[in-house]
Amino acid sequence: MNLHTLLLLALLATLPPAAAASKPNIIILFADDLGYGDLGCYGSPVIRTPNLDRMAAEGLRFTDFYSAAEVCTPSRAALLTGRLPIRSGMCGDRRVLFPNSEGGLPPAEITIAEALKEKGYATMQIGKWHLGIHEGSRPLDQGFDHQFGLPYSNDMDARPGLPKGSTGSPNPPHDGWNVALMRDGKVVEQPADQTTLTKRYTAEAVKFIREKKGGPFFLYMPHTFPHVPMFASPAFRGKNRAGIFGDAVEELDWSVGQVLEALRSEGIAENTLVFFTSDNGPWLIMGDQGGSAGLLKDGKGSTWEGGMRVPGIAWMPGRIKPGVTSQLASTMDLLPTALALAETPLPKGVTLDGTDLAPLLFDSKPLPARPFFYYRGDQLFACRVGEWKAHFKTQTGYGQPKADAHEPPLLFHLGRDPSEKRDVAAEHPEVIAEIHEAVKQHQATVVPGVPQLK
Amino acid sequence: MNLHTLLLLALLATLPPAAAASKPNIIILFADDLGYGDLGCYGSPVIRTPNLDRMAAEGLRFTDFYSAAEVCTPSRAALLTGRLPIRSGMCGDRRVLFPNSEGGLPPAEITIAEALKEKGYATMQIGKWHLGIHEGSRPLDQGFDHQFGLPYSNDMDARPGLPKGSTGSPNPPHDGWNVALMRDGKVVEQPADQTTLTKRYTAEAVKFIREKKGGPFFLYMPHTFPHVPMFASPAFRGKNRAGIFGDAVEELDWSVGQVLEALRSEGIAENTLVFFTSDNGPWLIMGDQGGSAGLLKDGKGSTWEGGMRVPGIAWMPGRIKPGVTSQLASTMDLLPTALALAETPLPKGVTLDGTDLAPLLFDSKPLPARPFFYYRGDQLFACRVGEWKAHFKTQTGYGQPKADAHEPPLLFHLGRDPSEKRDVAAEHPEVIAEIHEAVKQHQATVVPGVPQLK
Repeated sequence: MNLHTLLLLALLATLPPAAAASKPNIIILFADDLGYGDLGCYGSPVIRTPNLDRMAAEGLRFTDFYSAAEVCTPSRAALLTGRLPIRSGMCGDRRVLFPNSEGGLPPAEITIAEALKEKGYATMQIGKWHLGIHEGSRPLDQGFDHQFGLPYSNDMDARPGLPKGSTGSPNPPHDGWNVALMRDGKVVEQPADQTTLTKRYTAEAVKFIREKKGGPFFLYMPHTFPHVPMFASPAFRGKNRAGIFGDAVEELDWSVGQVLEALRSEGIAENTLVFFTSDNGPWLIMGDQGGSAGLLKDGKGSTWEGGMRVPGIAWMPGRIKPGVTSQLASTMDLLPTALALAETPLPKGVTLDGTDLAPLLFDSKPLPARPFFYYRGDQLFACRVGEWKAHFKTQTGYGQPKADAHEPPLLFHLGRDPSEKRDVAAEHPEVIAEIHEAVKQHQATVVPGVPQLK
Repeated sequence: MNLHTLLLLALLATLPPAAAASKPNIIILFADDLGYGDLGCYGSPVIRTPNLDRMAAEGLRFTDFYSAAEVCTPSRAALLTGRLPIRSGMCGDRRVLFPNSEGGLPPAEITIAEALKEKGYATMQIGKWHLGIHEGSRPLDQGFDHQFGLPYSNDMDARPGLPKGSTGSPNPPHDGWNVALMRDGKVVEQPADQTTLTKRYTAEAVKFIREKKGGPFFLYMPHTFPHVPMFASPAFRGKNRAGIFGDAVEELDWSVGQVLEALRSEGIAENTLVFFTSDNGPWLIMGDQGGSAGLLKDGKGSTWEGGMRVPGIAWMPGRIKPGVTSQLASTMDLLPTALALAETPLPKGVTLDGTDLAPLLFDSKPLPARPFFYYRGDQLFACRVGEWKAHFKTQTGYGQPKADAHEPPLLFHLGRDPSEKRDVAAEHPEVIAEIHEAVKQHQATVVPGVPQLK
């Protein structure tokens, strides 16, 4: 160390604190069909995610973070509203919304965007929506100032005559799907060029961050990938040993890195809570293009752990102490957490299913104990209390036409048996009784919404 | 920063470099039955391993590191000799050595300890041996100056009348096994108090490091745990959500931290290569006490990936660039690597199966492409070439009495399908032909040793 360095250090020590910051910004990065085992920091042996690994190393990584539903549409509804899909009616005969569905996220539902917008937040949604295309349900109807992305999944609107197997192909046809790219509700490209979607979403996000750096802002970024059909931009194509699925996840990882770097370079990282997670488990029937739930059982569509337990990483340098937590949390906690950060009261007269994560995030304190309810559509399939999970019904995510009912329920200890291999119901009737009681109390609070997924 | 701190920094900047170092020290930390999915940095949701995670973050973490055999004795023989067990005869009718076995590691075999001892290294083995209890095969016969630990597995020498199920119990009886603790070949405690073994191994290791810090030294530390029966010392007992298995792994993690901290505090970390790995996959039939291979198939005893792919972490601060590698490597590479570091020629006239990892470790260069051969006992069950793995025979580690033979072999792509779910043999006859050729070339080099495991 020379004299100049010493002087510089001495000078830095005398600087005043940064100017008073705006209310904290909130960013939610939401992957599509990314499994519990698909990131380096969650043990993937084949996919490299240095940016997410760094985010995890600098932030708080959750081992027991859940999406609120086992498939796409209800999961997204729950994240944005902090409510189980059954309350908003975001479930029904069909499992998700389709282009010909009439339903959508009811206008009466209060989203994170609506609540924050009222507090002066600039709000933007970049990526896949999938909560309805009709008036009242669209992004700009639900609290977002701006929107850029697809109205639903990238495998919808298939071209007539598309050969079977195209969706899960390692090399899907570029013109196979007619889904549109939209900006602020207007079509700007149809069919959307899916190969560059992640790149363009990222550019939009960085632009938004730079423009709104004075804050406060809320950016909700539900990515299109790694949902099939699988595409990646040329810079990532063919690079990964896991094939195109790995390429797509690595491009997603790059995107996360770009977003965090924009926050750093604008000097607002310390005032921005970033949360990364996925909408449900991996779509295993897609084979090589289906990802992995790691050691967890089954995947997307299922209430086995692999269907709903997903990566979860919280990042806010200087505010969140780096670490790993096994506290149970879910996407439904993001609304209460965001609103608390923005010093915004919770919506009045609305039954919420989430809790404010602030004590855990900022003070390393345990969260209040609470059960977690695993729904498949409008049916309660399983319930977790502490380490114990009881399955009243089980069904693989795809391929098993009818659920198996269990009385007594199957019982697993997720600490000793995270892969749900060893049913111990016979040895723990007292645990089952406790779970039945939790279910009873929960069900007394449930007023099903008008089904939207018809 | 105050003036005192500034002065201290200025002073530190003027200190001379450390005295010229000895030849590099070598430490091998070897877990027993630890699975691919049992560490935090390999994705365990239930076990916390901050010390191994830090070792991985500061070092090179392998995604594709293999033990040389699917069970204990042959795996250890291969690690110490750099040779497939079939060459040394460390396989046969029984899968491992038992207390009543007459065989052992043949005196003619050259171990890492023997080669380094000849170069002036102080050598010590701390932990479980399991390579023979008769003259010629014991630690002090095979190049170690000193030894402290058990002669074989902690579940051997069961007390007569021990209730069935004791071995895999979450609360095994302390007096259930009569295995002795030995020092330099002499019994010092019988039965060994297993609850404090990891603690005592660790104290021995730290003592050895402090005494031999002038170097060079070789420490081979094959831990007793997490092999069943599962014990942990009081400070770790009952702490982990995964139960006693998690407690035992967390104590092992603590032990690794103590060893690395001793190296740091003695100022020799930069001159010591530490390698951490496991002897085989998790012993799945032990249930809650059996660990996890993560997303890999099957476990201990099997040539599916879960039986032989294990955690592998190399650490040498300042010499090894931190990162993650998917280069294929195995425990048989440790002998050539250690000898190269010690500038010791490889044993003359001995067929080795390992290669020097130095280009990868110290210069981030790819290793030469080479097949990997999966043996079960003296039978070649599978072969990996690049990302492709062909199974000629398959058998679960335990519980399947006879192997299934496959012609054509089953074929899996370990990049796109690390869980070995989708046999693609029919689509890739050219790959199978290439693997057959690799096997032919390999088999021409194999002269089976006299079987020791009778």
